[in-house]
Formats: sequence, structure tokens, C-alpha cells
Amino acid sequence: MEKFPITDKTKITRLPKRGVYDKETIYSILDEALFCTLAYVHEGNPFQIPTGFVRIENKIYIHGSVGSFYMRELRDKKLPVSISVTFLDGLVLARSAFHHSVNYRSVVVFSEPQLVTEEHELYKALELFTEKVCPGRWAEIRKPTANEWKETMVLSFDITEASGKVRTGPPKDDEEDYSMNVWAGVQPLKTIRTTPIPDPQLKEGVELPGYLK
Amino acid sequence: MEKFPITDKTKITRLPKRGVYDKETIYSILDEALFCTLAYVHEGNPFQIPTGFVRIENKIYIHGSVGSFYMRELRDKKLPVSISVTFLDGLVLARSAFHHSVNYRSVVVFSEPQLVTEEHELYKALELFTEKVCPGRWAEIRKPTANEWKETMVLSFDITEASGKVRTGPPKDDEEDYSMNVWAGVQPLKTIRTTPIPDPQLKEGVELPGYLK
Repeated sequence: MEKFPITDKTKITRLPKRGVYDKETIYSILDEALFCTLAYVHEGNPFQIPTGFVRIENKIYIHGSVGSFYMRELRDKKLPVSISVTFLDGLVLARSAFHHSVNYRSVVVFSEPQLVTEEHELYKALELFTEKVCPGRWAEIRKPTANEWKETMVLSFDITEASGKVRTGPPKDDEEDYSMNVWAGVQPLKTIRTTPIPDPQLKEGVELPGYLK
Repeated sequence: MEKFPITDKTKITRLPKRGVYDKETIYSILDEALFCTLAYVHEGNPFQIPTGFVRIENKIYIHGSVGSFYMRELRDKKLPVSISVTFLDGLVLARSAFHHSVNYRSVVVFSEPQLVTEEHELYKALELFTEKVCPGRWAEIRKPTANEWKETMVLSFDITEASGKVRTGPPKDDEEDYSMNVWAGVQPLKTIRTTPIPDPQLKEGVELPGYLK
């Protein structure tokens, strides 16, 4: 199993048994996430931007307007960033307040931005942004024009330092609390896609595509 | 309508029409969120911690172990932080790749940590951590012992600088694309709670409480 190296930045010091460094698990958490939170430092303060992303091989790609302040800052100053994704999978309901917890999967990546300029890489990233959230859609939509390309900036981040943290399973209570008459267990949480809402301006006769049913 | 002041840090420069500063909206986004992402700077690098939280009046509270490295760092150095929450409410499927977007609600707060030492405030924060995620639960669980209190650190953050950003509604396409034979609209996303899973060690005869049904 291939692993990311444990570094000063990615070492899990709190509850280290929950730490994961294998690429397969980290990639699977990243690939399931529809957005990440990107943090960077500006004048000594930590800023955060929630943004869509896609992972291709060992890189994370984000995109934005060439007019976006933070995209330009990242590009021009090659600011160090952290990128995180978090899934809250369940509420862990213990018998004692103290042992209440949550089941989760999270990943934090440390990296630096690189401007993507190579046409093939740009196009592939843009296509996968769409295909990731809605497989099947890229084939039928209008592709970017030359001007739209000029308005779009794509940055990539090598996944060189990364760690995950995962909790699963039932609550762990103190031995003497197991006899309490209190229900204990996990309340699972799940993100679902509900019925698609057509654009009020949808052209008459256009049906919902199979990939959205 | 009471608003947070717009500061250098909270000014929305990209798509400013999506910016929100009114307290009611910002509080409602914070209150719906089951976790936040807290970012701070350590040796020039941006770190992120996903963590549970609760808002009481104009403060955000987080808690953790007194042994936690980042909790101690925050407490001892009073590091400036940003705290973000994000809801992805829907995929906005336009006719062109370029106008694909997402409906979302996000908030970013800038603040500094304060150690909570006053017993009444501590107890209230801990109670609301549980009640926020599972209303009705606090009354029946075992409350913290004196030793458990000693192992728990609670930090508060005044919400002095905060901004929200919200997108709702259908896609906005280029005029000439509305005649395309492509389905357009919104694919809503929603987080749901599924059937509770009892602890394998649940005491016989203990039934699922009404607040979890």
C-alpha cells in the first residue's frame, strides 16, 4: 500500500490511531468530495475559500475567474496553502456527554499553486470538473469558447504532503456506564441528490437526461 | 436589519452581489452547520481543523482535549483564526460548460480565541454542543464529572468580522444558448439523517428515544 510520508505538518498528534496516510484512502475521500476548503495566509491572517476541485493523479485542480483576487494572489505569490475536505458520516451518541463524538472522514493537503498553461491539461481538468459532479454531462453541453478560456484560470497543487483522519463505529463508553438505561449508537448522516428542478426557461420538449434520473 | 461591518478582511470582491452581512442570515447558516473548518497560521503555513461548534449569541464555541496541540496553541498564543462553514445546496447545470455553477451558502468569520473559564458559560456551551446536534439528548445522558471537565477545553470566538456568500436559483446562460436542446436546471443536494444504528453493546430493553425517531 503506497503511503504519503509523515511530515511535521501532517503528523496526527491527537488520537494518532485515527490517522491515515495511504494514498488509496486519501484519494477516495478527495474524489467523493464536491468541494474543498482552501486556506492561505494574507498579511499574517488565515483566509479560507470553499471551492470546487478535482483530483487527477497526484494533483488537485481548482479553477476560477482570472479576475479573482485570491486566484491571482495564489498564482503570483505561489502562496503555501492547505486544502481540506470533511465528511460528517454520523453522530456518535454515547451514554455520557463526555464520550459523544462524530464519525467522519477528513483529509488535509499541504501544497503550493502552479498555474496550468498546457492546453491538454487545462481541457482535461475542466472536463473532469463537470464529469465529477455530473457524469455524462460534458458530452452534451456547449464547450468553452476561446474567450471563455481566457477568462478561466486553472491552478494545480501537487499532493506531496497529505494526511487523513477517520473515525467509524459505535460509541466507546466508560465501563460503568454500559448499564445505564440510555439508548446509544450512531445516527448516520448522508448527502443525497433530490429531484432535479428544471430551469424556468428550459426549452419546451427537452427531457431530463438519463444521468439525472 | 443588523449587519456586520464590511472590513478589509470580509469585503466580498468576487461577485459582490452574492455577499451577505446581515446577522440573521449569517447566524442561520452557522446554526445549521454541524461542523466548521478552523484555520490558523503556524510557522507561516495555513493549517485547518474541522471541528464541531456551537454559536451562542455573538460567539462561536469549540471544545477539545486539554492535551490537543492546536487547542493549546490557540489558547496560549491567541492566534488569529478564520472559521468557515459551507453548504452545497445544489449543482447548477447550465447549457454551457462555462456557466455551470453551484448553489451554496457559506460564512467566514475572523476572530481570536478566548479561553472560557466561567463555570456557567462552560456548562451551557457543552450542553448546547449536544443539544444542537441531537435536541432532547442532554436530559438523559450522564453529565461530565469533575475530572472530565478538567480534560475539556472550551474556547470562544467573538463574531466581530463575518461575511456570508449565497447563490440560489437557476443557471444563467448566454442568450444564444437558451435555444439549445440541452436540459438545464438545478440538481439539489441535501443532508439527511438515516435510520439510527444501535450500539452492539446496547443494554437489552432500551428503546430508541422519540427524538431519534
